[in-house]
Amino acid sequence: MNKLTIFLAGSVLLFSCGKQKDKATSVITKTQSETFAKDSANIKHIFNTALTEGKSYEWLRDLTQNIGGRLSGSPEAAKAVLWGEQQMKSIGLDSVWLQPVLVPHWVRGEKEEAYYTVNNEKKNVPICALGFSIPTPTNGITGEVIEVKSLKEAEELGDKLKGKIVFFNGAFDDTLINTFRAYGGCVGQRFSGARVCGELGAKGVIVRSMGNRIDDYPHTGSMGYGDIPKEQYIPAAAISTRAAENLSKDLKENPNLQFYFKQSCETLPDAPSHNVIGEIKGTENPDKIIVVGGHLDSWDLGEGAHDDGTGIVQSLEVAYLLKKNNIKPKNTIRIVFFMNEENGTRGAKKYAEEAKLKNENHIGGLESDAGGHTPRGFSIDANKNNTKLVQSWKKLLAPYGLHDLTVGGSGADISPLKNDQITLVGYRPDSQRYFDYHHTAIDTFDKVNKRELELGSASMASLIYLMDKYLYTDDQVKP
Amino acid sequence: MNKLTIFLAGSVLLFSCGKQKDKATSVITKTQSETFAKDSANIKHIFNTALTEGKSYEWLRDLTQNIGGRLSGSPEAAKAVLWGEQQMKSIGLDSVWLQPVLVPHWVRGEKEEAYYTVNNEKKNVPICALGFSIPTPTNGITGEVIEVKSLKEAEELGDKLKGKIVFFNGAFDDTLINTFRAYGGCVGQRFSGARVCGELGAKGVIVRSMGNRIDDYPHTGSMGYGDIPKEQYIPAAAISTRAAENLSKDLKENPNLQFYFKQSCETLPDAPSHNVIGEIKGTENPDKIIVVGGHLDSWDLGEGAHDDGTGIVQSLEVAYLLKKNNIKPKNTIRIVFFMNEENGTRGAKKYAEEAKLKNENHIGGLESDAGGHTPRGFSIDANKNNTKLVQSWKKLLAPYGLHDLTVGGSGADISPLKNDQITLVGYRPDSQRYFDYHHTAIDTFDKVNKRELELGSASMASLIYLMDKYLYTDDQVKP
Repeated sequence: MNKLTIFLAGSVLLFSCGKQKDKATSVITKTQSETFAKDSANIKHIFNTALTEGKSYEWLRDLTQNIGGRLSGSPEAAKAVLWGEQQMKSIGLDSVWLQPVLVPHWVRGEKEEAYYTVNNEKKNVPICALGFSIPTPTNGITGEVIEVKSLKEAEELGDKLKGKIVFFNGAFDDTLINTFRAYGGCVGQRFSGARVCGELGAKGVIVRSMGNRIDDYPHTGSMGYGDIPKEQYIPAAAISTRAAENLSKDLKENPNLQFYFKQSCETLPDAPSHNVIGEIKGTENPDKIIVVGGHLDSWDLGEGAHDDGTGIVQSLEVAYLLKKNNIKPKNTIRIVFFMNEENGTRGAKKYAEEAKLKNENHIGGLESDAGGHTPRGFSIDANKNNTKLVQSWKKLLAPYGLHDLTVGGSGADISPLKNDQITLVGYRPDSQRYFDYHHTAIDTFDKVNKRELELGSASMASLIYLMDKYLYTDDQVKP
Repeated sequence: MNKLTIFLAGSVLLFSCGKQKDKATSVITKTQSETFAKDSANIKHIFNTALTEGKSYEWLRDLTQNIGGRLSGSPEAAKAVLWGEQQMKSIGLDSVWLQPVLVPHWVRGEKEEAYYTVNNEKKNVPICALGFSIPTPTNGITGEVIEVKSLKEAEELGDKLKGKIVFFNGAFDDTLINTFRAYGGCVGQRFSGARVCGELGAKGVIVRSMGNRIDDYPHTGSMGYGDIPKEQYIPAAAISTRAAENLSKDLKENPNLQFYFKQSCETLPDAPSHNVIGEIKGTENPDKIIVVGGHLDSWDLGEGAHDDGTGIVQSLEVAYLLKKNNIKPKNTIRIVFFMNEENGTRGAKKYAEEAKLKNENHIGGLESDAGGHTPRGFSIDANKNNTKLVQSWKKLLAPYGLHDLTVGGSGADISPLKNDQITLVGYRPDSQRYFDYHHTAIDTFDKVNKRELELGSASMASLIYLMDKYLYTDDQVKP
């Protein structure tokens, strides 16, 4: 522990340094250090409980192995809603309810197929349709391939794409330490590739999977056709990173090779589903709400373990850990299992809309949707004062590996609640392994480490304990 | 990034704060910020190279999958020595040599066997002999079991242990965030259980495996009989954590159950082996040496991937990354693959002994022997000034997840070099998953993540770059 920094819980970092010297008012009162000791002890109890009596791992086993992948509109998603309601009730939340929401209903259909032949060798390509893509004709499509590395490159080729299968092969930038930044740099190809190339008359789109690792697992994910007319819609699929590397090599020697792929996916009419909501009523300000959540839906290929089964069971465990440690929040802590984050965020929109209609007062939100790996910190989306407040808890959180308290986004499901006063936070575990599994058939229970998962639950519960105790809005006195 | 802290490379943290106000001399000169920018850029290049042109992952694949487990004295350990020499030469070190050392030679023999019967059900127990244990008689041993949770408890039972099989079932303390601390709290049972109980007339010792996770993999590891007479030696083995849990339950209902185990391990005469050493000669102070290393030997059950194949390939990659980035160290950087860390640390002792005999001037050391998981920081064992110096690099290292620059031990292989002036550092990756694999049959290549491994190499190379540039000893001017 760096003894050179002075840190006060529930207060901003006080010290003077160079230009900041004038602001120095570092009087550490007895009360402040007692408060720090109490907060520190409560956080320690939360971690101890998670690591010795935690339930998240067995909840996750149940959700992933007994229900499995749960794409919006699927029978598995419906089962997951009932499962979620039952788990919330089992830990004795004050109230539990289902919030109806219509969700998109896209189905993959039969297993996709792809191959090409070079030097008389047929090369099968691991492939999967992208969410919302149209199918190919029943017999598939065949065409010459044009390789590009970005949307911009595709746009610049213009008419040359006509009748071609466009191969987006922009790879993750491995030099970016946080793999989500690499994802951010590539995912446009997946989301908008078919829109851009459809408009230019291409026949189909295949996209290199979104991951650092070279392997044989195609990564699905959502795409959209935007405003282009339906007759310009073209099928879109992802191929594995290794297949992308190989295809790129083969194209250099065989620029006219014929690529074949077939998929039978389909978008059905919207389906009824639900957000699952439960809460611990606040003892002092029951009308002030802090939301904690993740998303209950997942892609269909794997078990939706890291994305986002871990976020679901960690959110539930936040409530469990508070109750188990007899911490009675003064504000209402509301656990939300959002539906349809993956392809539509309809659950998030519905939740925010109803909160607005009911004039609910949300003062904070915490989302876990970055996997269940070892804790690193939190990303803060709040006004300046509240950002400083959260950062002032660093010394309380650092002993648990929570060093990164940086300004950034929170999460897709809670960000529709954004306003000037609310403090939105995203839980940030280590990102190195996340895109090895994301949206693939191997996002399964066995990839999650029990302790890492539990440390995440405890990290989140500790933050909620501090947010509940110290968060202020305009109509409250600063703590 | 916390903008409130001011950090200067190659200098201690300068700021004033409350009581520290008087010491404030925070003048950030242009030169200092240029130096920081240069160091920051060099470190970024090191990370970029590791993540895009790193070789550690393929080296590790080769070492673990083509050679495999390499216990001291085994044919695999001999192969690993030649492999190490070849790899060092392949990256063009200025000189490479083998340092002869005699090592203990313990062999496991046939696969061990253990079981007991309760309610007419035979329960097979996953078991493995501990390193240096004597064998059981050819037909195994059978006896009543006494369960204890610590060495102290065993000692207190005294004569009651006579003729019994003592079952050490002290479990990891799951509330300790750093799992190495939990290991430290339990490993005495493994190392000294047979010595303590042998002296008290017990028949044998079985020890709960050293890990947090409940699973079916027994963890081997070294033990010793200390000074007790040979006739008091008793066989010692580890059983899996799940078997330990089950046995404990079964003993409650069947306190007289008969436990059987058989092992045919044997200690052969010491065998000749080698440390593998290579160096980049320093441009200014070739006689000042900074050692970087891990251990080449491993236990025999798995492939020695996290323990310590990762330390070996990361140490080698430190030299590779410096060379690739054309960083010419002013001191000599010496890469050492130590032999026999697991059961004897003879390589470490030999290396330190020869360094002393030759009056070599070691100014620094860095060891990687805590697994190949995602980077967390470094543990520093040095005098006060050098400790502060290393901690002053925090702002350069934090962008890569290296937040923990704490005072503590360095590693078993470099600590024999300890003196008042040398700066010894242990690389500290995340510890959560380490004891899932440590000393088991599942410490295999597939458990290592490529990026996490490479980030570790780059972390170590960055630290060596800074140590080489800024480390001072009494006869040097402070940087």
